[in-house]
Amino acid sequence: MFSTPHGDLLTPIFAPVGTQGTVKSISPEQLEAVNASLILANTYHLYLRPGDELIARLGGLHNFMHWNRPILTDSGGFQVFSLADNRKIDADGVTFKSHIDGSTHRITPEKSISIQENLGADIIMAFDECTSPYDLYQNEIALDHTHAWAERCVKAKTRKDQALFGIIQGGIHPDLRARSAEYISSLDFPGYAIGGLSVGESKSETHAMLELVDGQLPENKPRYLMGVGSPEDLVNGVLRGVDIFDCVLPTRLARHHVAITRNRRLNIANAKYSADALPIDESCSCYACQNFSRAYLRHLVIAKEQLGATLLTIHNLFTLVSLMGDIRLAITQKHYGRFAVEFLNNWENTK
Amino acid sequence: MFSTPHGDLLTPIFAPVGTQGTVKSISPEQLEAVNASLILANTYHLYLRPGDELIARLGGLHNFMHWNRPILTDSGGFQVFSLADNRKIDADGVTFKSHIDGSTHRITPEKSISIQENLGADIIMAFDECTSPYDLYQNEIALDHTHAWAERCVKAKTRKDQALFGIIQGGIHPDLRARSAEYISSLDFPGYAIGGLSVGESKSETHAMLELVDGQLPENKPRYLMGVGSPEDLVNGVLRGVDIFDCVLPTRLARHHVAITRNRRLNIANAKYSADALPIDESCSCYACQNFSRAYLRHLVIAKEQLGATLLTIHNLFTLVSLMGDIRLAITQKHYGRFAVEFLNNWENTK
Repeated sequence: MFSTPHGDLLTPIFAPVGTQGTVKSISPEQLEAVNASLILANTYHLYLRPGDELIARLGGLHNFMHWNRPILTDSGGFQVFSLADNRKIDADGVTFKSHIDGSTHRITPEKSISIQENLGADIIMAFDECTSPYDLYQNEIALDHTHAWAERCVKAKTRKDQALFGIIQGGIHPDLRARSAEYISSLDFPGYAIGGLSVGESKSETHAMLELVDGQLPENKPRYLMGVGSPEDLVNGVLRGVDIFDCVLPTRLARHHVAITRNRRLNIANAKYSADALPIDESCSCYACQNFSRAYLRHLVIAKEQLGATLLTIHNLFTLVSLMGDIRLAITQKHYGRFAVEFLNNWENTK
Repeated sequence: MFSTPHGDLLTPIFAPVGTQGTVKSISPEQLEAVNASLILANTYHLYLRPGDELIARLGGLHNFMHWNRPILTDSGGFQVFSLADNRKIDADGVTFKSHIDGSTHRITPEKSISIQENLGADIIMAFDECTSPYDLYQNEIALDHTHAWAERCVKAKTRKDQALFGIIQGGIHPDLRARSAEYISSLDFPGYAIGGLSVGESKSETHAMLELVDGQLPENKPRYLMGVGSPEDLVNGVLRGVDIFDCVLPTRLARHHVAITRNRRLNIANAKYSADALPIDESCSCYACQNFSRAYLRHLVIAKEQLGATLLTIHNLFTLVSLMGDIRLAITQKHYGRFAVEFLNNWENTK
């Protein structure tokens, strides 16, 4: 459990993503109804539009978006580095061009903390540099930045009601990961994020890095694996000590007509569902599965009706949130190892 | 009050439009929360996609779309005639090309009733011909078709649990309207629709036609003005004896960033709302106004987030549905005339 000003979080937990201050396709009421308790919002996007100062004037992000449960913001680092040719990194920070209007901006560790303090999330992130996982030389430079910036973030932080997490980088290089875990741990953050994974490396490389840092991070603080969110990745992450996950996957797949269940994916636009009276998943108790057939969902997505993406989003988020609930139960009942093996066997059998 | 197999309808009433078996941008749960009690679905659209026979196999439209309150279907006539160059009318029916794939179809009065019986709405419409309101010659021909087809619809109907309404046409021509009201009334339908208005004629022409048929139709049967739905048009329609309205206006405006209140329209994308902490309408008790600021709504629509249209749809529908509730109250309390005058004065003052 991790306590925040907006309530306690039971871990392990999955956080839906609300990039621009809204989880795409659904209302906060619908998000509560799938039992989501933590969501992620993106510092980069909200800084550019509508602006963190505006959000602060309107009472902070919780009030602005009408979400009274915990919020986590990223540092803006990952998004900025994704801008490729439109950003320039130096030892002090990053200068970049907005994807919206091409205007030039600069984010430093101090600026990232200032934005995140304006947004007012319960959990905020240190400003880090995420580079290609394979390039050793780039990862060494990025690690130096990430470590120096983590210290500057700690110093820059003024609000006492926000938990600042450090971020461990190092790509897929064991020595860099180990060095980063050791250094970031030494700064005594209330939680630790594992960044720079799930960005193109193989599953076995991800798992090796998770196992490595699992042995190095303090036992009593939450570990957050950024950007991970398929059912099998959640189960695998928890096996390797991860407490918090976030990912756009369930909401993005929903907008592309794909439903996630505990053992497979269904593209609901498929003609084979056109007269199918069953719900997406007969064992699911979400609003979509309790009330609508695959045939109706297929009709909605073929007819380009918004309700299709809304119902698929509700279902996909409910699937991941309820999976995490069952994982917590299995951990409490001390049979998570068996749960994970059965889940992963079942997942693979239906591929 | 008008009783249906899915509950009693208090009149006058406004019916939101769910063209393709979903009221755009919101869920049935959200539609119930705005207190909608009757919705309209379009025969033409559902016949083409997903098909009325499929919907019948899946338990009818109520079950298919998960809406357990009353539904009204139109006859398909209006949509077919809107196809302009892609349809050919004869005395027996209409042949037309699908707007989806160009395939050729034919709807006769008997076919329209068959489709509407498959869909299973509580209120269904006679197949009619709607032409330009000004062309006298065209209206005379259309009226002959409409009257002959109304009789064929009565004969074709087999289900006892659906109320078939006749439709009065005649454009803006008093003699034709009078003749149509007389003839259609003689067929003793349980309700009467007034078609061919709000299709380009002036407000005073609409009002003159409503006043004309108001004196001719039986007092104890509901009158349904098709395709009308701005607040001022609802108030004016009730003044002239109308009991049922439907219109895409509130849902369509919502998708174009426009909020309707009882005295004005707000384009919420306007820059002047960017830091506005007020709700759309301070006097409104809908989910959108109780929980979200204009600034947040503006952010959503500027950032192209779906929740913007969803919240505006909830607000706009709530505005019209609650206006109708207040109209019913004023009628019960016998001061509707005063209510209407005050409403219309207030509306005009803020233009």
